[in-house]
Amino acid sequence: MQMSKRISSFQCSPIRRLVPYSRDAERRGIHVIHLNIGQPDIKTPKEAINAINTYSEDVIAYGVSEGELALRESLCKYYEKYGVSVTPDNIMITTGGSEAIQFAFMTLCDPYDEVIIPEPFYTNVSTFANIAMVNLVPVTSQVDDAFVLPSIEDFEAKISKKTMAILLCSPNNPTGHVYTKTELLQLLELCKRHDIFLIVDEVYREFCYDGESFTSVLTFPEYKDRIICIDSFSKRFSMCGSRIGAIVCYNKEVLDSAMKLAQARLCPPAVEQVAATAALTAPQEYIDDVVKEYERRRNTLVSAIQEIPGCKLSRPKGAFYFIVDFPVDDAERFAIFMLRDFSYQGNTVMFAPAEDFYVTKSLGKTQARIAYVLNEDELRLAGKCLAEGLKAYRKQVMGLR
Amino acid sequence: MQMSKRISSFQCSPIRRLVPYSRDAERRGIHVIHLNIGQPDIKTPKEAINAINTYSEDVIAYGVSEGELALRESLCKYYEKYGVSVTPDNIMITTGGSEAIQFAFMTLCDPYDEVIIPEPFYTNVSTFANIAMVNLVPVTSQVDDAFVLPSIEDFEAKISKKTMAILLCSPNNPTGHVYTKTELLQLLELCKRHDIFLIVDEVYREFCYDGESFTSVLTFPEYKDRIICIDSFSKRFSMCGSRIGAIVCYNKEVLDSAMKLAQARLCPPAVEQVAATAALTAPQEYIDDVVKEYERRRNTLVSAIQEIPGCKLSRPKGAFYFIVDFPVDDAERFAIFMLRDFSYQGNTVMFAPAEDFYVTKSLGKTQARIAYVLNEDELRLAGKCLAEGLKAYRKQVMGLR
Ligand SMILES: Cc1ncc(COP(=O)(O)O)c(C=O)c1O
Ligand SMILES: Cc1ncc(COP(=O)(O)O)c(C=O)c1O
Repeated sequence: MQMSKRISSFQCSPIRRLVPYSRDAERRGIHVIHLNIGQPDIKTPKEAINAINTYSEDVIAYGVSEGELALRESLCKYYEKYGVSVTPDNIMITTGGSEAIQFAFMTLCDPYDEVIIPEPFYTNVSTFANIAMVNLVPVTSQVDDAFVLPSIEDFEAKISKKTMAILLCSPNNPTGHVYTKTELLQLLELCKRHDIFLIVDEVYREFCYDGESFTSVLTFPEYKDRIICIDSFSKRFSMCGSRIGAIVCYNKEVLDSAMKLAQARLCPPAVEQVAATAALTAPQEYIDDVVKEYERRRNTLVSAIQEIPGCKLSRPKGAFYFIVDFPVDDAERFAIFMLRDFSYQGNTVMFAPAEDFYVTKSLGKTQARIAYVLNEDELRLAGKCLAEGLKAYRKQVMGLR
Repeated sequence: MQMSKRISSFQCSPIRRLVPYSRDAERRGIHVIHLNIGQPDIKTPKEAINAINTYSEDVIAYGVSEGELALRESLCKYYEKYGVSVTPDNIMITTGGSEAIQFAFMTLCDPYDEVIIPEPFYTNVSTFANIAMVNLVPVTSQVDDAFVLPSIEDFEAKISKKTMAILLCSPNNPTGHVYTKTELLQLLELCKRHDIFLIVDEVYREFCYDGESFTSVLTFPEYKDRIICIDSFSKRFSMCGSRIGAIVCYNKEVLDSAMKLAQARLCPPAVEQVAATAALTAPQEYIDDVVKEYERRRNTLVSAIQEIPGCKLSRPKGAFYFIVDFPVDDAERFAIFMLRDFSYQGNTVMFAPAEDFYVTKSLGKTQARIAYVLNEDELRLAGKCLAEGLKAYRKQVMGLR
């Protein structure tokens, strides 16, 4: 009665490993500030909630496997804002961006095929690759370089006969980097030269700061056939629980093939699709306000951490995460220390050790991913906790002063 | 720019292949009676719709990966009606029974491992097996035997070192067979002898007719560790679009392993889980009435088809499907004929050719799967169409008289 070797080799969510410690701290009455997860506290648009509250079907029936036409039509209009011109036929609604990534891997890759990905990256991609038996080949982006695109030569050096695609995330989770038009074009040229796909995960599309403008991979029609865009309603409309995402693609063969997977699992959730369609009717101010709020939060937390001696980070330009390099021996040990052995005026901080965001062993050992999805007061307190906690850890655990 | 060999080898839904023909017929003004899909026309319990209409969260947030505790607790109470005693820890909520089957395959099997399954079976299982690179090893059940469990010797002959599990569906889609307590016990003994799992898909649990009593695999505590039950709200509460299912399992290692997959995809849909929790508060009469309605429908359609000369079928005891063996050369050709070349007083019938419900090549060529999820008037008309269509097909296409 053994589990499969495969499942035994899959990673446990690095964040979940720490949950017992945070539960324990909370049981001891300590207020744990969660910088470890990307669950926004922002309200879902009232348009979405209203649509749920006025849902009037008698039967919650199976929908079409590619997602409701009304939703796909509304998405087309929404993409126009980004200079993207697509039709409903270019869109497949998925059960979250998570499913979209899995469909892309399964559609493009055979077992042991390779996908090149800048590391650090969204860690669940590892499990999606494992499920599809795809090997992720990392190209390391550097905290000292503000996590810009590694050189094209670095990518090219990793391309083999087994390479089917490059996977990018822009704005990036976990680094906060927003890939520029030039970076995208360089990659597209490379993909064309080697006849491979470029998959871009744009689930944080809205979240760009300092007037940084966002370029969607869908705005390069010359490279149409090799482009796959991953999208999601989760973060944009703070409706992570709805599990509505999408694959947007000009290549009919890709969508036709993914359709086999979509049909087998029948359809995306019905009521949540109604909510998503309504969310797209929220006024532009909704998202503008949310982005302004995140920009303030970023400023607050980034400043607080930049003031802590020895902490290295680059000001993130998008999404709502950044990587910080702590002056510690081991970020996971430090994380456990913060939860188990430390508190500041009854408070402590939980963050995600960054090691699992890398494929390359030994990278990221002293780094953490920080999410700034809480209000500014909490974030200021979090900064204070981190500063004090770091002092305590360096003294008590590392024997420094 | 080729798709993976893998995806290219996956089947297109056999039912979908006929959709262009049915659309065409509808465009020509013909009323197509859909006996091809298992989408009930029964109303979702008003408790579920009310819960949706009074959903009052501000943020549709990520839930826990294993599913909401309230839902798992309510499920425990519901299972008690079937003599099953489980705790919330034994339950993982999934995005439909579809995801539950996929999680089970991935958790138990490595690539090229085998799962034994009585054929004909729910055809999407093929795609789930393909995704996990699991080989389905069929044991054929026979229309002449009312699709009872094939002999244990037949199963035993198929067991190899690579066999990890037997997958059963009871009540069965597509045959309508309800496996007896004795059949289950025989299989469990076999599984014990060979140290493998028994997965039972019980998504049609309620749908048993003629006073047939249903035995859940969860009622055999002696075999606890090797039992995996697949469940779903789709059919029971006519809420197929909600995509809420479950794995129920006493074996902690199985659920802990499946949890890695659950965490990567984050959580099941949030609003739909609220609806599912509420659906469980629907009075017993809701489901009793639904089952009575299906029993009437079954009686109506089965009688109508049994009267057609040359049609072979065994009276189904559960679910809402049966297999009919038509006196034709090829059931798919007959299906296309019905949609493209035939109508009876402006009506015709669409059904699913059964060939794809078998793994063994050449089996099921003259069979179809019939779903009786429509009202009795429609079903009576469908019977008439089939009788007339069969006459026409045998004469015009097969040259018989
Ligand atoms: C980069 C990235 N892609 C995809 C996802 C998946 O999101 P969802 O499945 O909720 O759409 C996430 C969630 O955190 C993410 O950060
Ligand atoms: C036997 C069987 N199992 C599982 C499913 C999957 O149902 P769902 O994913 O809607 O729960 C179906 C749907 O028709 C089915 O017939």
